[in-house]
Amino acid sequence: MRDIVVVGAAETKFGKLESSFRDIAVEAANAAMADAGIDRQQIEAMYLGTFSPGTFIHQEHPAPLVASMLGLAHVPTTRTENACASGSSAFLQGLMAIGSGMYDTVLVVGAEKMTSTPIEETTQILAEAADWESETLAGATFPSLFALMARRHMHEFGTTRAHLSAVAIKNHHNAFRNPYAQFHREITEADINNSAMIADPLTLYDCSPVTDGAAAVVISTRERARNLAGQPVKVLGFGQASDSLSLFRREDMTCLVSARKASERAYKMAGIGPSDVSFAEVHDCFTIAEIVATEDLGFFDRGQGGPAALAGETALNGRIPVNPSGGLKGKGHPVGATGVSQVVESVFQLRGTAGERQVASRDIGLTHNVGGSGATCVVTILGQAA
Amino acid sequence: MRDIVVVGAAETKFGKLESSFRDIAVEAANAAMADAGIDRQQIEAMYLGTFSPGTFIHQEHPAPLVASMLGLAHVPTTRTENACASGSSAFLQGLMAIGSGMYDTVLVVGAEKMTSTPIEETTQILAEAADWESETLAGATFPSLFALMARRHMHEFGTTRAHLSAVAIKNHHNAFRNPYAQFHREITEADINNSAMIADPLTLYDCSPVTDGAAAVVISTRERARNLAGQPVKVLGFGQASDSLSLFRREDMTCLVSARKASERAYKMAGIGPSDVSFAEVHDCFTIAEIVATEDLGFFDRGQGGPAALAGETALNGRIPVNPSGGLKGKGHPVGATGVSQVVESVFQLRGTAGERQVASRDIGLTHNVGGSGATCVVTILGQAA
Repeated sequence: MRDIVVVGAAETKFGKLESSFRDIAVEAANAAMADAGIDRQQIEAMYLGTFSPGTFIHQEHPAPLVASMLGLAHVPTTRTENACASGSSAFLQGLMAIGSGMYDTVLVVGAEKMTSTPIEETTQILAEAADWESETLAGATFPSLFALMARRHMHEFGTTRAHLSAVAIKNHHNAFRNPYAQFHREITEADINNSAMIADPLTLYDCSPVTDGAAAVVISTRERARNLAGQPVKVLGFGQASDSLSLFRREDMTCLVSARKASERAYKMAGIGPSDVSFAEVHDCFTIAEIVATEDLGFFDRGQGGPAALAGETALNGRIPVNPSGGLKGKGHPVGATGVSQVVESVFQLRGTAGERQVASRDIGLTHNVGGSGATCVVTILGQAA
Repeated sequence: MRDIVVVGAAETKFGKLESSFRDIAVEAANAAMADAGIDRQQIEAMYLGTFSPGTFIHQEHPAPLVASMLGLAHVPTTRTENACASGSSAFLQGLMAIGSGMYDTVLVVGAEKMTSTPIEETTQILAEAADWESETLAGATFPSLFALMARRHMHEFGTTRAHLSAVAIKNHHNAFRNPYAQFHREITEADINNSAMIADPLTLYDCSPVTDGAAAVVISTRERARNLAGQPVKVLGFGQASDSLSLFRREDMTCLVSARKASERAYKMAGIGPSDVSFAEVHDCFTIAEIVATEDLGFFDRGQGGPAALAGETALNGRIPVNPSGGLKGKGHPVGATGVSQVVESVFQLRGTAGERQVASRDIGLTHNVGGSGATCVVTILGQAA
């Protein structure tokens, strides 16, 4: 596949926003095109990652809606959905579309508007990304599914409350330094211990929030990007894998095979290994998910993700900073936007423009975006274009 | 882009089915793999086109569900959604994924389960593919939007009730000869004139039905397909285009600019023109839509689609047979399956295996799949592989 770069990247503020779905998608997309220094007439196709606009805002068929509101006259545009990995799935379709030679320059947008829906409905809508027949109908919601994983991880490897807390504390610390993040409040172990239990052992502070937000990137060939003002970042590799939708059909609940396969594929395509990664944005929908992710990605041995987090190895100034943006936990988790936002943060970090949360080593960034309880995983690897 | 062929094609019976969403998706996919003579271990990725499983059956994240039920262990899989063009959008992502060199062999599935939902809800769900803010909230549903187009087409070009009826009668005639079709009943002008008015001038027989069904194709490189038993059909070209989601923002209601642009792009890629097409499967969600389609695709001049249908030019034995399958009107319209089913029918016709509905000239087949009232259009052109 020919060389592809990300040449523009932007996102909205994440949180409970007044703006509508269409407003935030347009805001992020316009900002990404401005960051790229590109004229909208040069955009040849658009992909939109969004999870469930049909249930959240009664609007299906959102891709041409956003494209026409952006003034992208008659471009081919398609929505992708893979639950919480809808955004990275859109990014991958954009990469392959350029890779095929059909288009040279593509806009990828991820967006979700969640907070205008009553919270009980939101929990139900999210639960529809699990297996309706074997999980959702039986009362399972995502906190309970990840609680099962957490309990098993604790049982198998001795992972502790303090390990989970270390992830939450770190990600709030990082989010405090991210102007786009939903939460700007550092938290302590006492806050966590005094918070509500959601699904034992996961407390309120182990869970990512309900969020509105959008993120967008402009991707192009290296040649085309030379004529643009945006500082390019190279796509070194990507990988995607799937698994059974339902947790009970998997052999092991302490790792995600989809994440292991997706990262193997991405590492192979990039020609690197885990030790070459400078920093990572991983899918911490719950604190346990970040611990599992850092093991699945090969940063730590199995069972060592918790101790590593507690020892500060994944902190901003640690050996391998994980979720410098604050992650889903601190930055927020507007479902369809998250995968694109991970790429946006990686672009900022690789460019060295991440301000107070800038990591020191910035050769290679990795993103890890999970759908459902791990039925989908998408991994991308980005590096310096020079 | 390298040469790509469709090497396996299959679909379920369309209609009100007892089977669940997952059952029909699996049935079509297994049949397509059997038709290709391929072992499932050779499938490297899967795309699933489906419109709104979140609202119809409370199941989001359906792509890995179907992939794992098929035993496609850990393949990358993604759902695409573009309203009624969700299926062809999945097909295009599969083509570009192979075109990029990422995968050599891809399974594309389209499916929708609609009849287990109460009909009033179904109308509402479908209406969410229109612009919620400017159309759906104002009471517009798809019959009313296409009725506006019909009235304007009548006013501009003198299109008549008899022209619309000719389309419905032809498509029921063809469906009667298609074992996969929902309706196996020929209709007469009297049936139409005595039927209920849905949205003036569109009667019950001008509208496609609510349908369950699934369709699937296996696509691969020409080289890989040489080792498979399935008779290959070549993908000569494809094109996609978008337009504003809302009808009122368009300059003209008597044509779809998205269809004109998508077909221009597909013709250019295939290196052919409208007069080279042997037969076409077009998106006749309403009878007026087929008349407009045959004009947009360049088969007839503007305003001549109605008279041509009445003159039998689009009949099975006409100059250019349109919807030999029976189309959405006669075969049925399981939204996400339709675009894939159009490709399946084209494969059957190009192979010469379409039985009683076989067209005589079978060099080149074209498919035309529309999303919403024309905010999306996807056109593909298939031909003999030899």
